[in-house]
Amino acid sequence: MPVLLPPDRAPTLHDLLAAANTAGLDTEILGASQAGSIPISGLGSLSGAGPAEISFLANPKLHEELLACKAAAVIMTAEAYQELCTIRQAPGYTVVLCSQPYLMYALLAQWFDRHRLAGLPAGIHPSAVIDPTARLGQQVSVGPHCVIEAGASIGDGTRLGPACIVGAGSRLGKDCLLHARVTLYHGVAVGDRAILHSGVVLGADGFGFAPDPRQSSGAWAKIAQIGGVRLGDDVEIGANTTVDRGAIEDTVIGNGVKLDNQIMVAHNVVIGEHTAMAACVGIAGSTHIGRRCTIGGASMISGHLVLGDDVHVSGGTAITSNVSRPGRYTGVYPYDSHVQWQRNAAVVSQLAQLRKRVRALEKSGPATPQ
Amino acid sequence: MPVLLPPDRAPTLHDLLAAANTAGLDTEILGASQAGSIPISGLGSLSGAGPAEISFLANPKLHEELLACKAAAVIMTAEAYQELCTIRQAPGYTVVLCSQPYLMYALLAQWFDRHRLAGLPAGIHPSAVIDPTARLGQQVSVGPHCVIEAGASIGDGTRLGPACIVGAGSRLGKDCLLHARVTLYHGVAVGDRAILHSGVVLGADGFGFAPDPRQSSGAWAKIAQIGGVRLGDDVEIGANTTVDRGAIEDTVIGNGVKLDNQIMVAHNVVIGEHTAMAACVGIAGSTHIGRRCTIGGASMISGHLVLGDDVHVSGGTAITSNVSRPGRYTGVYPYDSHVQWQRNAAVVSQLAQLRKRVRALEKSGPATPQ
Amino acid sequence: MPVLLPPDRAPTLHDLLAAANTAGLDTEILGASQAGSIPISGLGSLSGAGPAEISFLANPKLHEELLACKAAAVIMTAEAYQELCTIRQAPGYTVVLCSQPYLMYALLAQWFDRHRLAGLPAGIHPSAVIDPTARLGQQVSVGPHCVIEAGASIGDGTRLGPACIVGAGSRLGKDCLLHARVTLYHGVAVGDRAILHSGVVLGADGFGFAPDPRQSSGAWAKIAQIGGVRLGDDVEIGANTTVDRGAIEDTVIGNGVKLDNQIMVAHNVVIGEHTAMAACVGIAGSTHIGRRCTIGGASMISGHLVLGDDVHVSGGTAITSNVSRPGRYTGVYPYDSHVQWQRNAAVVSQLAQLRKRVRALEKSGPATPQ
Repeated sequence: MPVLLPPDRAPTLHDLLAAANTAGLDTEILGASQAGSIPISGLGSLSGAGPAEISFLANPKLHEELLACKAAAVIMTAEAYQELCTIRQAPGYTVVLCSQPYLMYALLAQWFDRHRLAGLPAGIHPSAVIDPTARLGQQVSVGPHCVIEAGASIGDGTRLGPACIVGAGSRLGKDCLLHARVTLYHGVAVGDRAILHSGVVLGADGFGFAPDPRQSSGAWAKIAQIGGVRLGDDVEIGANTTVDRGAIEDTVIGNGVKLDNQIMVAHNVVIGEHTAMAACVGIAGSTHIGRRCTIGGASMISGHLVLGDDVHVSGGTAITSNVSRPGRYTGVYPYDSHVQWQRNAAVVSQLAQLRKRVRALEKSGPATPQ
Repeated sequence: MPVLLPPDRAPTLHDLLAAANTAGLDTEILGASQAGSIPISGLGSLSGAGPAEISFLANPKLHEELLACKAAAVIMTAEAYQELCTIRQAPGYTVVLCSQPYLMYALLAQWFDRHRLAGLPAGIHPSAVIDPTARLGQQVSVGPHCVIEAGASIGDGTRLGPACIVGAGSRLGKDCLLHARVTLYHGVAVGDRAILHSGVVLGADGFGFAPDPRQSSGAWAKIAQIGGVRLGDDVEIGANTTVDRGAIEDTVIGNGVKLDNQIMVAHNVVIGEHTAMAACVGIAGSTHIGRRCTIGGASMISGHLVLGDDVHVSGGTAITSNVSRPGRYTGVYPYDSHVQWQRNAAVVSQLAQLRKRVRALEKSGPATPQ
Repeated sequence: MPVLLPPDRAPTLHDLLAAANTAGLDTEILGASQAGSIPISGLGSLSGAGPAEISFLANPKLHEELLACKAAAVIMTAEAYQELCTIRQAPGYTVVLCSQPYLMYALLAQWFDRHRLAGLPAGIHPSAVIDPTARLGQQVSVGPHCVIEAGASIGDGTRLGPACIVGAGSRLGKDCLLHARVTLYHGVAVGDRAILHSGVVLGADGFGFAPDPRQSSGAWAKIAQIGGVRLGDDVEIGANTTVDRGAIEDTVIGNGVKLDNQIMVAHNVVIGEHTAMAACVGIAGSTHIGRRCTIGGASMISGHLVLGDDVHVSGGTAITSNVSRPGRYTGVYPYDSHVQWQRNAAVVSQLAQLRKRVRALEKSGPATPQ
């Protein structure tokens, strides 16, 4: 979507609101119209924003921060503004009404960040090693020490930070942003507008071995992983996350999927559109995860499972069987002081026995009240 | 082991079976002998294989997929074939009998992948930085932007992908394959035929600190890690896995060990031969793990423990004490709907008390039936 | 602190003790003074040290190893020595008394390692790509294939291993050591004497998305992360650990913090001074952790929490609420043989019901003893 901010000066509040309205939001400045001509240097939190910055109220409970806020302007809903009026008559900042302040904050942050990104060097750095059979689109940037192997293709407007590697025959769509040190093995296909962070590895071998009785006791024969990895459009993948290539068929990540850092996606996993996973999640091989799921940090999902659409897994949870119904699922042992934990954990290994004892008490009949 | 596939054309079914028999498998084509002359373009799953591909039946329950399979040939056991015959008289594909279809699939996948690997560029890329005191064997490949430091040695036939780093004095055996961006610190020794994936780091410092009362309250003095890392032969290590160097003595990984992605092996851990670990496992310092163990994904093993041979740990399990007996060990809190989990987890912090209450009920004697 | 070891020959025991005393330790050689002139080639464990090495007794229980030790000298406390005398009259090694043998071992290991580090090549490697606006201090080393972007600054005496990347405007203090392949995004500030290991990524985007009803169902709008990352002095960060940049304000890591490998620090986390975390820990966004905490391996800490000073979390524990009181906290489901685990885990999902049943038994009154 086009952004109509001035390229050569700090945007004014009016510029920002016009851009937001163009992007489909409905915004309005309250009060004196000259407030709109204030140049805005950036975004700040309610407590941290300075007098040339814009802030936002996403959580309506932040009364104190709101009253003390020193920003030039604060974005809030009409409801929040009405509540503010009951407390304080004239805030020191300009109020911007918007029914979706959090989304507007997201767009503003993108625009201010785009100013920075626009300053990145363009073009192909001479230290990059690019195979003559690789195809590069229009306005592609390739940073220092990148390697683009035979038959790879890079879509228009895609930018590679320093030291990225694109394996043989792999394909990046349009307008992707690869930060420094992203690795694509051979046979990896990435859609448009992907954002891949440093240390991401797409297409390493899945973990497949067959017991090999021809060798010494316990030896394994490697199952070469001849599938690939396919990412849809608008996928973002965090730092040091790994997505393995499929054993025979591909590992598939749907449109709009967002993966945080240090996530492990094993071979032949399929992740549905717009599913988001927090950091340190591990998904074992061949598991299919539905659309619009959210997976909390450090969760693990066993292999060969099916999770339906709109499944929400709390952090630290081990999912060990299929989940067909939407909803929230949880499973972490509650922490306690170490001494209390010791007392209670000792009972865990006797739970079946404890249940038996309760059953025995029940069978012996209700006690006679004295 | 020698592979007798033709280098210049797609192998026929006969070629593949001859190679498998040479490799020690016992295979047989059923039916018309001209089936053996079909050129085979690759491998496919039962449901995905096309008419020029070969497939296999590893799981005898896949009746439906087997009946609908469109492959040129399917590898299966004689038992599975007999069962197939009771259902269907003449499948559309050639049947290949083999007592170990999964192992044969592993070998076939290797051979088809080797065709691809054979296409990799050989030789030393001019952008690699190689210290004059490093020793490189015969037929070594070094990719773009690699760094090989002083005194390092690389065995015959070993290939380094782009941007690998081999620290001072480190040693790689023969016929190793380092994918892009593998890092060996100084003093790391790797055996023959290792496969190391992108982002692997061998030999970073173990996590060792001594409380330092000479400094401000709570400060730590670093314990320099002066041990190394030693890997046996036939080790494979997955993407972004880290193996730390020893504090004084070495961290040791035995022959044939297979580590998946994002595993953490701390200093002075010892892992026995042919042990395999799924992704996201963490092993704390000085723990010794036996031979032929399997460790499920996202398990964690505390430090200074001893696990014997043939110990199998389920995914997500925290091993916090020695395990001397072979067998399978498990320990994850079972997940549930969030509401159910809340109800049950609340009782966990009262388990010791609950057991007391049951004991009190028992002590008060069996109830009199009414 | 100055180290007074001879640069050109192996130090003698006297040299080492003099250096230790200068560093603030109180050490003493027992017995014949000529023992002090033995050249010491390195450090060894009690069981592994050879006759030219020095060892130490940190754990007073190691009687057997102590008696069989073949080192030239062993560092121990006076108490340990007295106990040794009750067992054995004349050990074959020289005894060095020190009230803090573990700290002395730490310093010795640093010194022996410094000999090695002193051998690293200095200066700027010609393959490094350094923006002309970057500022490099005195005696800075930059390894092969490094990239230093516009406006970055590197303090005096800081050394970058091969293939490090310092993003635009980022700042490294004095005497830092970056091992191979460390990545700093733009806007990252690191204090003095940091040690950063291979695969570390500082400043990747925090995981921030707003639901975007303008797009298709379930789509997310990216919240650009415009904060930075700030590290204090004397921070060490292990291999493949990631510290994300803040959403608006910075992610902050205090002086003397030690992070092991594969740790994930999310956006806007604040970690207090001298806190140490073992490998594979995940800390979700905006959580504040106090000073002098220790976090065990594979623990996860939820977002928006506050942990006070001197909180110690056992490995594998999920911290899901604020922890204000110092002490040790634990929460892992105890492992068991798989069969036993199955029996007990089945009861976990009935715990609330089990408690009800016990309550019912209690309400029915104490049973009449027969």
